[in-house]
Amino acid sequence: MNHETIQAVANTVRCLTMDAIQKANSGHPGMPMGCAELGALLYGSILKYNPDEPLWINRDRFVLSAGHGSMFLYSLLHLAGFSITLDDIKNFRQLGSPCAGHPEYGLAPGIEMTTGPLGQGFATAVGMAIAETMLAARYNTREHTIFDYYTYVLAGDGCLQEGVASEAASLAGHLKLKKLIAFYDSNKITIDGSTTLAFTEDVALRFSAYGWNVFHANMYDTDDIERHIEIAKKESDKPTLIILKSIIGKGAPTLQGSHKTHGAPLGEDEIKKAKENMGIAPDTYFYRDPEALSYFEAYKLKLQEQYTTWKEKFTAWQKQNSELAEELALAQAGKPVKVPQWPLFKLDESIATRTASGKALLAAIDSWPNLVGGSADLTGPNATEIPGEPYSAENHAGRKIHFGVREFGMAAIANGLALSKILRPFCATFLVFSDYLRPALRLSALMKIPVIYVLTHDSVYLGEDGPTHQPIEHLSSLRAIPNLTVLRPADAEETVLAWELALAKTDGPTALILSRQNLPVLPKDDPNWKDTIKTGAYVIKNTPVEPEITILASGSEVSLALEATKKTKKQVRVVSVLSLETFLEQPEPIQTIILGKSAKLIACEAGHPMSWYVLTNTVLGIKRFGESGPGTKVAEHLGISVANLLALIESV
Amino acid sequence: MNHETIQAVANTVRCLTMDAIQKANSGHPGMPMGCAELGALLYGSILKYNPDEPLWINRDRFVLSAGHGSMFLYSLLHLAGFSITLDDIKNFRQLGSPCAGHPEYGLAPGIEMTTGPLGQGFATAVGMAIAETMLAARYNTREHTIFDYYTYVLAGDGCLQEGVASEAASLAGHLKLKKLIAFYDSNKITIDGSTTLAFTEDVALRFSAYGWNVFHANMYDTDDIERHIEIAKKESDKPTLIILKSIIGKGAPTLQGSHKTHGAPLGEDEIKKAKENMGIAPDTYFYRDPEALSYFEAYKLKLQEQYTTWKEKFTAWQKQNSELAEELALAQAGKPVKVPQWPLFKLDESIATRTASGKALLAAIDSWPNLVGGSADLTGPNATEIPGEPYSAENHAGRKIHFGVREFGMAAIANGLALSKILRPFCATFLVFSDYLRPALRLSALMKIPVIYVLTHDSVYLGEDGPTHQPIEHLSSLRAIPNLTVLRPADAEETVLAWELALAKTDGPTALILSRQNLPVLPKDDPNWKDTIKTGAYVIKNTPVEPEITILASGSEVSLALEATKKTKKQVRVVSVLSLETFLEQPEPIQTIILGKSAKLIACEAGHPMSWYVLTNTVLGIKRFGESGPGTKVAEHLGISVANLLALIESV
Repeated sequence: MNHETIQAVANTVRCLTMDAIQKANSGHPGMPMGCAELGALLYGSILKYNPDEPLWINRDRFVLSAGHGSMFLYSLLHLAGFSITLDDIKNFRQLGSPCAGHPEYGLAPGIEMTTGPLGQGFATAVGMAIAETMLAARYNTREHTIFDYYTYVLAGDGCLQEGVASEAASLAGHLKLKKLIAFYDSNKITIDGSTTLAFTEDVALRFSAYGWNVFHANMYDTDDIERHIEIAKKESDKPTLIILKSIIGKGAPTLQGSHKTHGAPLGEDEIKKAKENMGIAPDTYFYRDPEALSYFEAYKLKLQEQYTTWKEKFTAWQKQNSELAEELALAQAGKPVKVPQWPLFKLDESIATRTASGKALLAAIDSWPNLVGGSADLTGPNATEIPGEPYSAENHAGRKIHFGVREFGMAAIANGLALSKILRPFCATFLVFSDYLRPALRLSALMKIPVIYVLTHDSVYLGEDGPTHQPIEHLSSLRAIPNLTVLRPADAEETVLAWELALAKTDGPTALILSRQNLPVLPKDDPNWKDTIKTGAYVIKNTPVEPEITILASGSEVSLALEATKKTKKQVRVVSVLSLETFLEQPEPIQTIILGKSAKLIACEAGHPMSWYVLTNTVLGIKRFGESGPGTKVAEHLGISVANLLALIESV
Repeated sequence: MNHETIQAVANTVRCLTMDAIQKANSGHPGMPMGCAELGALLYGSILKYNPDEPLWINRDRFVLSAGHGSMFLYSLLHLAGFSITLDDIKNFRQLGSPCAGHPEYGLAPGIEMTTGPLGQGFATAVGMAIAETMLAARYNTREHTIFDYYTYVLAGDGCLQEGVASEAASLAGHLKLKKLIAFYDSNKITIDGSTTLAFTEDVALRFSAYGWNVFHANMYDTDDIERHIEIAKKESDKPTLIILKSIIGKGAPTLQGSHKTHGAPLGEDEIKKAKENMGIAPDTYFYRDPEALSYFEAYKLKLQEQYTTWKEKFTAWQKQNSELAEELALAQAGKPVKVPQWPLFKLDESIATRTASGKALLAAIDSWPNLVGGSADLTGPNATEIPGEPYSAENHAGRKIHFGVREFGMAAIANGLALSKILRPFCATFLVFSDYLRPALRLSALMKIPVIYVLTHDSVYLGEDGPTHQPIEHLSSLRAIPNLTVLRPADAEETVLAWELALAKTDGPTALILSRQNLPVLPKDDPNWKDTIKTGAYVIKNTPVEPEITILASGSEVSLALEATKKTKKQVRVVSVLSLETFLEQPEPIQTIILGKSAKLIACEAGHPMSWYVLTNTVLGIKRFGESGPGTKVAEHLGISVANLLALIESV
């Protein structure tokens, strides 16, 4: 790619960016204008992709971690031939346009993930790079290399200040992810002004400390950048950070270099002068340089040749490795390779749902070879131990990932694994520390990708560790997140069902909420409970006549409710609510069948009552922080007891 | 402090730790045993404190960031003469004991903060060190040095893997916090096993990159540690990290060095052998070495002399600086130095509540000299600009803190500022990014400390930035956190009241939820609304007769509700709910006065309806993620419109 062409593409990026943002009267011109040449180089010469097959499994990944610079991505995807039209760009930031304010996964092909919340693009790119090594280890053969993609990520000062990027960078260095190349758009400007206000660390030294390869270059010396990318690719065992000294809003005649270009339209006058400086008529709107257009037209053919070569190789691989090929196809369809041998439990056996989950996980691991994951350094307590050597720099075939004490990084990386649409990730921590990873969980939900969150130690019953470790608000808080399925099984058998449901769900994340303490395996009055439970709830204990009262409970409080019913003469039904949100989505007649026609409702859950009020205001829950002490004593102290539930039953 | 005494203290720490954990059958012996000598050195020779005046404003701060090692702290506080008795230690992890599973702020004097959620102790210690520089700049005179305390923090591998510690460390280096000394208990062991599983970065190099002074020493060479502390104190412009190579569970004869000592009792046999090795009779329980006891008895007198000297200086300072002394006393009482000149607004004036908040903040800054804070790089958008040079390494008197793009670090640091009980911190970001700082906000709430969270861009009305920036679940999620007051003002006047309430609250954090978009200043039918609003809600528009319907709304939806009432013939009251949780805490008669005796209730809020169901199931809210587009169009697209509210009014 010669300098003239690069400039033609860069000019186009700048013009589309300025005009789209001016028209929308909203947006962030600084980053796309500052990085336009890099974009030209990447999409015009470095990245391997196929606009007609945007989900090609071996495409190079490019993540715009600095998601506010979305016009960077839209301009280049448009030029490169992805299905983003000039009209889409003209509709930037308007309802229904694929060109949303920040890149939204699923709105247009070529957008590898949703970005905007800073730091997460960088961390999720680490997950994509891990995915490549896993896929290569699973599917490449001596004869055929099916997977060998690179993951590129463009991050700004904001991303690199976020803790989640630090966590992921540390793990990436540890794992020696040599096919990960990060560009740092170092323009020394943030929203508040110069980075010298708050960010004067030596980023290069920090990344060296993580075990990264670090280069410095000028953002506008594309030859030098290309040279560094080549060197990075020859690097045997390190991820690479290329620090690019840049000018924010480059090309804006009076504003470039200022934080004023970051997040607001440049204004008509400034844009006109910018165009003049580029030799473009100032009254040309949404200008696309003809050389840029013709270059990409030709380049697309070249890319397609590349793709065709790969496709031929892939077909040959399929023929010679039918079993592997079948496994890959099943993984892509989200299906197991064989019927899972779920663990069985005996009635009244006492077993924590986290332990039952551990057993279910082992069965799942056997049947879903694409299932990978681990814990943020709580493998034992979370019961997520799986057999075999862990995934490591030396063992890419490993399925157990040691994420370290990095909950947020873990979840962001899990998103990267899920975005492969081949691997099926789970990740684990204590429920209370779901707060640490919440921003990444929100992105799983927003992107509708099926990450499984294993969240154990699910209530004050965890006991001695005290209020910092006892979740109160977490169940309600998680249930308020759209697209997330929250499952809190009442016993070991429901736990297995929960894993089945989690694995069957492919359009969003699932949170498995599991007890630390032992719980009895419960008798279930509904003979079809395994089907009924798909509504989110079922009658676990029925009454001979229409119930006067129905108790709704989840998790450990189901057995507590069953205890309470033994002590009353009232006709009390108990409904086990595995998934409250799912139950609330059911048509009213189905809800009524489960709740009873005229029963008074009582809900019981060892957490904040907020999410239950939609069904009943009579809730035995906890509205305050917990305390340190043996679990049952703490729960009783906070009012969660058979006696209190019984009192409620007698009072309604 | 001679080696024998150090060993006597260390033995005592080990014995109390082993026995307390064994008796509770729960706890973490590894860290206290591994760091016992360091504890002896710190409490027996380094730290400046007064057990009889535990909140002495110039005490050195010690934060146990690795909070699971709580027996480390309890043993040493007990020996040092703080009011933790041997019986308290024998009741370790039992209901009501000050010796909770993790150190809980407020349960016993000497516990500087609640720790347990990893990384946060480290980050909050940075806040304490910032507080020292601020207090010194405000109150020290040429003649009298009132504030010159050091902040010490002990962190483990877990803490240093967490992103929040990275964020805070980077800022600490930037701010050249030379009175911050961190010890890194580098025992190379985490719960999953060796740190080589996930954490092989060069921590020393990383901290050098942040601008820290880094030393290495052997955990058991206390002379060398002491020497390094001395050097660190002479350091002119850097925080210090002392990396201490240690052995987890040191003293446990067969288990030391293993992750098995981390989080479980050692077992009777192991403990007996450990005691034998120390030369202590194996059947002695809760052993305290007589030399340790007598040493601390004598040392306390020395510390009290030190305190008395300071107290005399303080008294002299008070006499000579009556105005400053008065200001300090008011700050400690949480009171302003003068009546604030709150901004006034004109009826129907159109102004975003974030902008009104910015004006209120300026008035508050004038009257509360102890009010300090800033934004995570969104000073302009959050409207938290305050006059004067920002706080920096060169300007400790500055009141505006540039936290950088580090939301979690910011909130953890704000906790450290609030724990001074003199400074009053605020911190700011977009509401949607409250997810990033949620774990620290939870600690503000758990510790009941008055951090003010300024959270702007509070709904889908923010528009073009799209779903990554549009909060949906956040209001409900925040309302579920105990001790947190969530205030969502409807207009500029309510915003001023919200600031007044936030500043008046001293026993917990407040979240101010503010609009990006302009809102009209509303007429208020309740003439005493400024008093009534303290109940959380008031009648903003009344009806001539008893209302048929009462609409409950908050923030921007109050004006929407007022619009809707103009278009119906029904008798519709509108209640502005500034604080839903506060309203729900009112006695029923007060709620009834505000809601109307028999009015049907409708709630309206541009967010998840969950928190409103306790009052009514008829809620106009949003249960899905947002979209990118102009704010009003997005809101209408998601169903938040006058027309839809009107339809609800007509339907009930």
